[in-house]
Amino acid sequence: MSSSSRRTVVRGGLVVTASDETCADVLIEDGRIAALAASGTPAAESFTADHVLDATGKYVVPGGVDAHTHMEMPFGGTYASDTFETGTRAAAWGGTTTIVDFAVQTRGGSLREGLDAWHAKAEGVCAVDYGFHMIVSDVHEETLKEMDLLVAEGVTSFKQFMAYPGVFYSDDGQILRAMQRAAGNGGLIMMHAENGIAIDVLVQQALARGETAPRFHGEVRKALLEAEATHRAIRLAQVAGAPLYVVHVSVTEAVAELARARDEGLPVFGETCPQYLFLSTDHLAEPDFEGAKYVCSTPLRPREHQAALWRGLRTDDLQVVSTDHCPFCFTGQKELGRDDFSKIPNGLPGVEHRMDLLHQAVVDGHIGRRRWIELACAAPARMFGLYGRKGTIAPGADADLVIYDPHAEQVLSAATHHMNVDYSAYEGKRITGRVETVLSRGEPVITERRYTGRPGHGVYLPRSTCQYLN
Amino acid sequence: MSSSSRRTVVRGGLVVTASDETCADVLIEDGRIAALAASGTPAAESFTADHVLDATGKYVVPGGVDAHTHMEMPFGGTYASDTFETGTRAAAWGGTTTIVDFAVQTRGGSLREGLDAWHAKAEGVCAVDYGFHMIVSDVHEETLKEMDLLVAEGVTSFKQFMAYPGVFYSDDGQILRAMQRAAGNGGLIMMHAENGIAIDVLVQQALARGETAPRFHGEVRKALLEAEATHRAIRLAQVAGAPLYVVHVSVTEAVAELARARDEGLPVFGETCPQYLFLSTDHLAEPDFEGAKYVCSTPLRPREHQAALWRGLRTDDLQVVSTDHCPFCFTGQKELGRDDFSKIPNGLPGVEHRMDLLHQAVVDGHIGRRRWIELACAAPARMFGLYGRKGTIAPGADADLVIYDPHAEQVLSAATHHMNVDYSAYEGKRITGRVETVLSRGEPVITERRYTGRPGHGVYLPRSTCQYLN
Amino acid sequence: MSSSSRRTVVRGGLVVTASDETCADVLIEDGRIAALAASGTPAAESFTADHVLDATGKYVVPGGVDAHTHMEMPFGGTYASDTFETGTRAAAWGGTTTIVDFAVQTRGGSLREGLDAWHAKAEGVCAVDYGFHMIVSDVHEETLKEMDLLVAEGVTSFKQFMAYPGVFYSDDGQILRAMQRAAGNGGLIMMHAENGIAIDVLVQQALARGETAPRFHGEVRKALLEAEATHRAIRLAQVAGAPLYVVHVSVTEAVAELARARDEGLPVFGETCPQYLFLSTDHLAEPDFEGAKYVCSTPLRPREHQAALWRGLRTDDLQVVSTDHCPFCFTGQKELGRDDFSKIPNGLPGVEHRMDLLHQAVVDGHIGRRRWIELACAAPARMFGLYGRKGTIAPGADADLVIYDPHAEQVLSAATHHMNVDYSAYEGKRITGRVETVLSRGEPVITERRYTGRPGHGVYLPRSTCQYLN
Amino acid sequence: MSSSSRRTVVRGGLVVTASDETCADVLIEDGRIAALAASGTPAAESFTADHVLDATGKYVVPGGVDAHTHMEMPFGGTYASDTFETGTRAAAWGGTTTIVDFAVQTRGGSLREGLDAWHAKAEGVCAVDYGFHMIVSDVHEETLKEMDLLVAEGVTSFKQFMAYPGVFYSDDGQILRAMQRAAGNGGLIMMHAENGIAIDVLVQQALARGETAPRFHGEVRKALLEAEATHRAIRLAQVAGAPLYVVHVSVTEAVAELARARDEGLPVFGETCPQYLFLSTDHLAEPDFEGAKYVCSTPLRPREHQAALWRGLRTDDLQVVSTDHCPFCFTGQKELGRDDFSKIPNGLPGVEHRMDLLHQAVVDGHIGRRRWIELACAAPARMFGLYGRKGTIAPGADADLVIYDPHAEQVLSAATHHMNVDYSAYEGKRITGRVETVLSRGEPVITERRYTGRPGHGVYLPRSTCQYLN
Repeated sequence: MSSSSRRTVVRGGLVVTASDETCADVLIEDGRIAALAASGTPAAESFTADHVLDATGKYVVPGGVDAHTHMEMPFGGTYASDTFETGTRAAAWGGTTTIVDFAVQTRGGSLREGLDAWHAKAEGVCAVDYGFHMIVSDVHEETLKEMDLLVAEGVTSFKQFMAYPGVFYSDDGQILRAMQRAAGNGGLIMMHAENGIAIDVLVQQALARGETAPRFHGEVRKALLEAEATHRAIRLAQVAGAPLYVVHVSVTEAVAELARARDEGLPVFGETCPQYLFLSTDHLAEPDFEGAKYVCSTPLRPREHQAALWRGLRTDDLQVVSTDHCPFCFTGQKELGRDDFSKIPNGLPGVEHRMDLLHQAVVDGHIGRRRWIELACAAPARMFGLYGRKGTIAPGADADLVIYDPHAEQVLSAATHHMNVDYSAYEGKRITGRVETVLSRGEPVITERRYTGRPGHGVYLPRSTCQYLN
Repeated sequence: MSSSSRRTVVRGGLVVTASDETCADVLIEDGRIAALAASGTPAAESFTADHVLDATGKYVVPGGVDAHTHMEMPFGGTYASDTFETGTRAAAWGGTTTIVDFAVQTRGGSLREGLDAWHAKAEGVCAVDYGFHMIVSDVHEETLKEMDLLVAEGVTSFKQFMAYPGVFYSDDGQILRAMQRAAGNGGLIMMHAENGIAIDVLVQQALARGETAPRFHGEVRKALLEAEATHRAIRLAQVAGAPLYVVHVSVTEAVAELARARDEGLPVFGETCPQYLFLSTDHLAEPDFEGAKYVCSTPLRPREHQAALWRGLRTDDLQVVSTDHCPFCFTGQKELGRDDFSKIPNGLPGVEHRMDLLHQAVVDGHIGRRRWIELACAAPARMFGLYGRKGTIAPGADADLVIYDPHAEQVLSAATHHMNVDYSAYEGKRITGRVETVLSRGEPVITERRYTGRPGHGVYLPRSTCQYLN
Repeated sequence: MSSSSRRTVVRGGLVVTASDETCADVLIEDGRIAALAASGTPAAESFTADHVLDATGKYVVPGGVDAHTHMEMPFGGTYASDTFETGTRAAAWGGTTTIVDFAVQTRGGSLREGLDAWHAKAEGVCAVDYGFHMIVSDVHEETLKEMDLLVAEGVTSFKQFMAYPGVFYSDDGQILRAMQRAAGNGGLIMMHAENGIAIDVLVQQALARGETAPRFHGEVRKALLEAEATHRAIRLAQVAGAPLYVVHVSVTEAVAELARARDEGLPVFGETCPQYLFLSTDHLAEPDFEGAKYVCSTPLRPREHQAALWRGLRTDDLQVVSTDHCPFCFTGQKELGRDDFSKIPNGLPGVEHRMDLLHQAVVDGHIGRRRWIELACAAPARMFGLYGRKGTIAPGADADLVIYDPHAEQVLSAATHHMNVDYSAYEGKRITGRVETVLSRGEPVITERRYTGRPGHGVYLPRSTCQYLN
Repeated sequence: MSSSSRRTVVRGGLVVTASDETCADVLIEDGRIAALAASGTPAAESFTADHVLDATGKYVVPGGVDAHTHMEMPFGGTYASDTFETGTRAAAWGGTTTIVDFAVQTRGGSLREGLDAWHAKAEGVCAVDYGFHMIVSDVHEETLKEMDLLVAEGVTSFKQFMAYPGVFYSDDGQILRAMQRAAGNGGLIMMHAENGIAIDVLVQQALARGETAPRFHGEVRKALLEAEATHRAIRLAQVAGAPLYVVHVSVTEAVAELARARDEGLPVFGETCPQYLFLSTDHLAEPDFEGAKYVCSTPLRPREHQAALWRGLRTDDLQVVSTDHCPFCFTGQKELGRDDFSKIPNGLPGVEHRMDLLHQAVVDGHIGRRRWIELACAAPARMFGLYGRKGTIAPGADADLVIYDPHAEQVLSAATHHMNVDYSAYEGKRITGRVETVLSRGEPVITERRYTGRPGHGVYLPRSTCQYLN
C-alpha cells in the first residue's frame, strides 16, 4: 500500500478558502481530499484515519500556487541560483505546493527542445508539484504549430516579452501572431509589458552620462513605458480576440490600463509580486552596490505606487500574486554589474515568502483572509488550468494543505531561509503568521517546521486552459 | 424527534457553488450540511442516512437568496398582491429559500412600529426563511438611534429613496445623516437612485401634454436621472465614509458610475433584476394598456442597455440579481392608472423565476455557471450578512439545497406560476432548466415538482452586517 | 459735440487680444474703434486725431469684463460694502471696463421687481458700463414667463443656487424647469454648484461640536459636495437640452466633471476666480478670526487644488476668470460671525485686482499672454453676449482699452486699493504689471494712474444670448 | 514699382477670422495688411487705393493654410501626380494660399539632401507660398544634429511613421530619440500613428486568404491599431518631454486618446482630413476596383466614426484640418494594385476642396463660421510657426485673402477641378459656398473665378517653432 493510500484527517482547524471560512475536519484518502465535515458533528466524528493532525487554533489553507518562478534560469551569462530541487524545497517551506515555471525557447530553437530541456531539469528532483509555461522567443510558422501541440499536452500558457530586445523580445507582429494562435487553441499569452526598445535608448544614454549604479536601473525603466506596453498588449490582444495576462505589474498607470480594459469587459488579467508591494526604489538606492540585490524587471518603484497595487488587488483589477522568483547571489552574480547596472542579472529571491508576506497584508489590513487565499492559491490555479485539483480545499481536490499558525511570529533572514541565495530581499522583516505543516497530495512535506519531504515527490502537472474564460 | 434531526444524503449531483463545481455527495444532519464527500469515495460511501435523494445528472445548488422583495407592500392606495404566505411559496417553487423583504417606516412613525408590523405579517406563514431590510422614510434624531438598535437585532440594512417625493423620499441631508449613522453602526444603505424631484416635473409635464399611456412612465424617468442619482448617492456615501448598495440598476450610465467608483476602491455595490436583463421599453409600449403590466421603477429601458448590464454582471461592477418582486394584478390594480400612468402601481411579479432566468443566461452564454450561483445565492447572502448560513453548500451551512435539472424545459406562464397575480411578465418565455426538489434547512419544500412545504416552516433570520466589508 | 465724438489714436503699443499680438495704432472715433493700422505704415501715419496716447513699450488690451460681481448685495443681514459707484470706480482702476452684476429676485417677488431694484441702484452712478444677470430664487410659472421677457430685454443669463437652502436655493425640479425654459429662450443658466442640503447638515454638526472658527467653513463645504453638485447640474442641463455655466469652480474633482462633460461635447462652461488660484485654506486658518476675511462660498481650498484649476484654464475646461466680488468689511460685517462661522457674510473683495493677478499668472508661466486676455476679456464677453462690442480690439468695437505697463511693479494693499472695504485679501502681494490708462468708450477714466472718470459715465448694457452656442 | 507695392482696398465684406466677425474694409499696402477699418466710418472712407475690390455680401477670410500636402511624393514606385506647380495652382483655386509640404529623408541619406531635393522641386514654380516639414526616415546621431540645423533655418517640424516598416518606419527608440531632440530644439514631431508592424501581419494574412480588393485595405488597418499607436506616441512624447502632433486622425478611439492626454494637460495635438469627415468604408467597397480611388492611410473608416471626429473638432481635441493631398491617377497608378490592395499607392487628391468642404460643414451645422477659419487657417498657421504672417487678417499680416461667396453653389467634379488627377474623391458632391477671388501677398491669384496667378509667385516660408507652446 503506497503511502498516499493512507487516510489522514486534519481536525479542528478553520478551513479558509477563497470563498469560505469553515470550522471543518478534512478527510484525506489516497492523496486527495475525500470529505469535509463540520467539526464536532456526528459526520465529522465518524471520520476514521491512520493519521490525525490537530489544527486547533490554526488555519487550514490550500497549498500555495506560485505561477511565476524561474529555477535555473539562464540570464546575462549566469543562471538563477535555485535549482528545481532547492527552489521547490524552499517553496514547500513557505507553504507553496505548486509552482509553474518557465521553459525557454532559445532563438533558433524549437519550443519542443526548450520544453524537453526544462523537463529534464525538473524531473525527479522536485519537492512539490510543478507545471510549465513556455517562453516564446522566436515566433515563426513552426513555433505557432508547436503552440497547439503544447496546449494539448498541458502547457497552456506562453510568455512573450516586449522588453529585452535581442534576447527574449518579440515585436508587435510576433505578439499578434502568437495571440491569434492562442485565441484559437485556448492558450493564454503572458506578457512582460515594458517598452524595451525605448528603455534600451534610455539605458545607453544613462550609461553614457556615467550613471552606472543600480538605482539608475529603476530610473531608466520609466513607469510610463510599462503603462504604454500594458496598453499596447491589451489592444493587440483585443485585435487578436485573445485573453491576456500581464506579469509583474508594478505601477499605478499600468493598473489603470488594466482597470480600463476590464471595465470594457475584456478578458485581461494582471499579476503583481510581493517585491512591488513591500519594497521600493529606496532599496534600489542602497549604497555600496547593495541596491543590486533589488534589481529586477519591471523594477522596484517609488513607494507611492504601492497604494495603487493594493487597491488593484482589492478591486480585482489584479488577480494574482506570484513571486517572479529568480535569485542571483550577491557575490559573484549580482556583482557582474558593479560598473554597469545593465549587466546586473535581473531577479529577486522570493518563492519561500509569498504566503507569509500576503498573510502579513491581512494582518496589516490591506486584504481580507479569503482574498489572501484567492490571490495566492485559487486565482493562480484557476488562471492556469489547475483549479479543482489545486488551489482549494474541496472534495476531490489534491490534498495540498497547509496548517498555518496565524499568531506565530518570525523574522525573515538569509540566515534562516531555505532558498539557495546569499541574501534576503526582506532581511529583518517581522512577520506575523507561520507555516507549521504542509501536505502535498497527502504527504507531509513540512511537519511542524521540519522538512519531511524528498526530491522527486513532486510530479509534473499538465494543465487545462485558463478557467476564467469558461 | 423533529423532522429536521433526520439525516439526508443527496447523492451523485454536481455541486455548484460560487467558487466550485464538485461531484460530491452532501450529508445533512439536523437541518445543516454536515459533510461533503467526493462521490464514489469510501468517505462518501460511509455516509448513512434516513433519506437518500438521487441527484445524478442534476446540479445541486444552494437555495436562492432573493434580497429584494415586497410582499403585501402598500403602494399607491393598494397592496402588492402576494402575501408572505403566497409569495414565499412561489419563491420555494422557483428554488429560492431565503427572501429579504422590506419593512416600512411610515412618515411620522418609528422604525420599530414599522418593523413590528412587518414581523406580524410574516410570522407563522412563510414557506421559506426570511429577513428584513428597513425602509427609512423619515430621518430624524430618533430614527438614527433606532437604526443602531435594529442593527443589533439583525436588521442591518436600510433603504432610502431619492425618488417618490412626499412618500418614501429622503433629501440629501437625510441621506447623509443616515449614511453617517450606518458608517458607525455597520449598517448598509440601500438606495433607490432616481432623481425623483426632477422626474416629478417631467411627469406633470407629460400628463399636461396628454401623455398618459404606460410607455410615458418609461420616457419621463430618464436614464440620465438614474445615473445622476447613482453618482450623487456614491458621493454622499463617500462623504459619510459609508458603503452603499444601489438597488435595481437599469441603465448603462449608472453602471458606468458604479464602475468608476469601484475603480477608485470605494465600497459601492449594485444590484440589477431580471426584468432589466430580459424585458425592455418594447414591453412598456404594448397596446391596450398591456404596457401597464411592465410598469416598475426604475423603469424598463431600451434594449440597448441590456448589454451594459450583462457586462456589469460579468465584470463584477454589479454583484447581485434580485427580483424587486412587487406584484399587482392587471385587473383592479394596474388598472388604477388607466388614464394616468403615474397612478399605475409600480412593480412586477418575479420571485418565482429568478433562478430559472439566470440559468437561461448561463445557457445563452451571458454568464458562467458559478457566476449564476454567485449572483443569485452567494453574493446576496454575503451582502446582507447571511453567508455561511445561506448562499453556499459547505459544512455547517443551513441545508438549503436545490436539485436542479439543467436539461428540462419549461414555459413561463401565469397559467402555471404560483405567484398570486393574474399575469406573467414573461408569458410564453421558454426556459432551459428547472427546479426539481428544494430543501429548506433539510426539509423538502418542493419534492420532484410537488409542493411539500407548509406555512410557518420559514423562520426569521437576524442578519450580521455586510460581509463584503471585512 | 459730445466728448465721445472726438478722435483719439493710441500709438505704438503691442495690441494684445485673445487671438493676436500686433504692433498697431488704434484709431478711435465716436467712442468706438474705427481702425487699426500696422504701426509705422503709411496707413497708420495717415490717422489724424484730436488726442494721441503714446503706448510705446506698453500693451494695449481690451478693457476687462468681470462677469461676476455683487455690488450692494444683501447677504446675511448686511450688504456688500461696495456700491455700484465705488465698485465700478475700483473696477476702472483695475482695468475692468464692464461688469455684469446680479439682480436678485426675492422669494415671493417677481423677476421684474428685482431687476428694477438693481437698475435703480446702478443707474447714473457707475464709472464703467454694466449689465445684469438675474438671480432666480423662486421658480414658478410666472417666473418662467418673465425669463422670456428678460432675455428679450438683454438680461440673458439666470443664476440658480444648489446651496443656501431657504435663501437662494432651488431644488432640482426648479432647476430643471428653469433650464428647460432657458433651452427655449436662449438664456444661459449659471449655477452655484454645492450640495447645500448636505452642507447644512455638516454645518450644524460642526457647530454642535463647538467648531465655530472660520476654518470650519472650509471643512464642512466638502470638495466632493461641489463636485457632486457640478455633476448634477450637468446632467439636469443635459436632460433639459440646455447649456450650463458653473460659477466659481474651486476643486480638482469639479474640473474633472466639467472636462468629462466637455469631452462628451456638452455645452458646459466653467468659471474660476483669482481667490481659488492664489489663496487657500491656509488663509482661512489664520488666527484671531483673521480667517474670516477669506470666507466665501465655494470656499478656499487646500492649495493642492490650484494646479488643477490652472490646468483647467490652460485646457479650456474652464473658460472664464471672474471675481465674485462681494466685499464685507472685517470690522462690523465679517465680525457678525465671530462665534459662529455660518454667520460670517460670504464674500471677498476682488474687482480691482483681476487683470493684475492674471497678468502675474502670465509672468509666473501659468498661462500665455493671449490667454490672459481671453480669460479676462474675450471669453466673458462672448459667454454673456457682449462680444464684438466688448472684450476685443477690433473695428466697430467699443473703445474700451487699457494701456498696460507689463514691467511696472506694485504691491496690493488695503492702504492703496480703491474698493470700499477695510482689508485686502492680497495684502502685501507683489505684482509685476500695472494699469496706466483706461478708456471706456473712448473716454479716459483712468489717465496715467489718476482717476479721470465720473459717476454716470457707465451705461447699462443689454446683452445678446451666449455667443459660444452659435 | 513692383506690383505688390500698390495699395488695394477690399470694401464691404464680412471679415471672418478665428476670433472675430467684423464688417470692415481691409487696406493692403506692399503685400501686407496695413489697416482694417469699420466699414462706413470716416476712417474707412479715408482709405485710398489703386485697386478696390468689392466684397459686399461676401466673406473676406484669410487664405487657407494646408499643413499636410505631398506634391510629387514618391510612393510605391510611382509619384504623386501633382507637381508643386499644378498642386499649388489647384490650392489657389480652392482658396488655400499656403501649403506645408513634406521633404523626405531617404534611408541612408541625410536630412539636408532630402530638403535640398524638395527645395529644387518647389522653387520657382509655386503659385502660392510654401514651407516644408521634414520626414525623418533614418534616425541616427547625424540626423539628430541636422534636426537642430533645420529648426534654425525654418523647418521646425519632423514627421515620423509608426507605419510602413522598411520604408518610412521608425521604431520606438528612434521615435524617442527624435522626440528628445525636438524637446530641446523646439521642433514638433508629427506622427503617422498606426501600428505598422501589426498591420503588416494582417496584410499578409489577408492576401494569403485571397482578400485582395481595395476594401481589405480598410479592414486590415484596424481602428484599434491606430488608437494604440496614438497612445504610444503620446506616452513616448511624455517620456521625452516633447509636444506631439498626430496626423490624419480617423477613428473614435484615437480621438479619445487625444482627449485623455489633453485633459491631463499634455501638449498633444491632432489633425483630421476632409476624407475622414465626408467619406467612409462605403467608398472603399465600391465595385470594379473603384474603391482604389479611396485608398489612403490611415484608411477611410465606417461612417460611425465621423461623429467623433466632428465632436473632436468642436471640443478642440482636434485642432487642424489638412488634406494629406497625395493624388494618384486611377489609370496607371491606382491600378498598380489591381490584384493586391497593398500595392495600391496610398493617397487621395484634396488640396483644392478643403475650404469649401469645411464651409459646407458650417452650412450643415457641424461647426461655426469662426471655427471654420480656425481649423483651416489660423490653427495650422499657429501650429507650424506661421501665425501673424499667415492664418489671420490683422495689421502686419501677409495680405493672403479670399473673397468667399457663402451663397454660391457648386458641384465638385474631376471635370472641373484643377488638380492633376483623373478622378475626384467627391465626384458630384454639391457644395454651398465658393471662392471668388484670392490674393496672395496682395497679388490677385484668382480673380472672380479666373486664374490670374503665375508659377514662381509663391515663395518659401521659413517657419518659427510651434506657437501653441509659448
